[in-house]
Amino acid sequence: MEVLPKSLTELIEKLTILPGVGPKSAKRMAVYLLQKKKEQAKELALKMISCIDDISHCKNCRNFCQGDLCTICNNPQRNNRCICVVESLPDLLSIEQTGTFNGLYFVLMGCLSPIDRIGPSDLAIPKLMGNIHKNDVNEVILATNPTIEGEATAHYIISQISPSIKVTRLASGIPMGTELTYLNDNTLYQALTERKEVERN
Amino acid sequence: MEVLPKSLTELIEKLTILPGVGPKSAKRMAVYLLQKKKEQAKELALKMISCIDDISHCKNCRNFCQGDLCTICNNPQRNNRCICVVESLPDLLSIEQTGTFNGLYFVLMGCLSPIDRIGPSDLAIPKLMGNIHKNDVNEVILATNPTIEGEATAHYIISQISPSIKVTRLASGIPMGTELTYLNDNTLYQALTERKEVERN
Repeated sequence: MEVLPKSLTELIEKLTILPGVGPKSAKRMAVYLLQKKKEQAKELALKMISCIDDISHCKNCRNFCQGDLCTICNNPQRNNRCICVVESLPDLLSIEQTGTFNGLYFVLMGCLSPIDRIGPSDLAIPKLMGNIHKNDVNEVILATNPTIEGEATAHYIISQISPSIKVTRLASGIPMGTELTYLNDNTLYQALTERKEVERN
Repeated sequence: MEVLPKSLTELIEKLTILPGVGPKSAKRMAVYLLQKKKEQAKELALKMISCIDDISHCKNCRNFCQGDLCTICNNPQRNNRCICVVESLPDLLSIEQTGTFNGLYFVLMGCLSPIDRIGPSDLAIPKLMGNIHKNDVNEVILATNPTIEGEATAHYIISQISPSIKVTRLASGIPMGTELTYLNDNTLYQALTERKEVERN
């Protein structure tokens, strides 16, 4: 015998599509929304629908946008001769939050993975090459993750870029605020191999 | 300069009304839904709206329902002379899941808290007393939480119930599957004080 109304059971089920939400938290969410936040929950639902209908991907860099181009590609003050390649949109947002980068982005939306049949065209790498050529880019920053797939994707992209264009990767080493004891061997190895001379005057 | 489209920023903000969802997970959720689950996210939003419009509280026990009475109160096979009083709907669901209770419920939706100005009428305790009287109830199970507020609420309700009616509380003691070492002193004290004689034949 079902205790909850059918439509509530269905709502709980549908809430589990949210990342990190299992059946227990979905139940808690549904009860909480219906008991305490009916008004806001309705606003959330309406906003979700309007976002789904309005938001698409930037024709240039695949960032989210309303219209054809995203706010970054539309901004004439950004340096369009430098492209930073990231795996995902959250990566783009993280880099943007540092406030140190003034170029354009290109979002791969994944990385090469032969096992999942994700090839260069699924990541729009040909489109990236087109952008590099079109804007006469002089630096490509490869900001893919330091994982096996991220590295493989970076290597593939490097192989496609003309040797006359500067290609850089994010520095790897010790994260700020960490203690050496807790670092994994790989990171420490990397940090040691790529040590930098201290500038003294 | 805003990187994300305005409506997406608004969606992220609204997602934080969900319990346990902060700005970082809200961002991850929004990006994930728009990138990979557009169709399901729309279904979720529509279901949320229909739930908000359709679902109300049972006129008898304050459980969620579609219509006037919930499925439990509407079920003639439930024993309406036994009422289990719980603080919240998830508590009702948890007890229902054990499959050992065949009476009706009453959901307080909170517990007494003078500091938050939550008094007996906010918890519909007068309505509970009406139900007890109307159904000629012979047992009230107080299943409020073993917290200070839960205990205070239980004591208040006990004081309101005629002494001729049996009032019970959930047993407190060692949770099944726990090791004694990891128990807090209070629970162990409780379990020791309320120890039960082993039945031997």
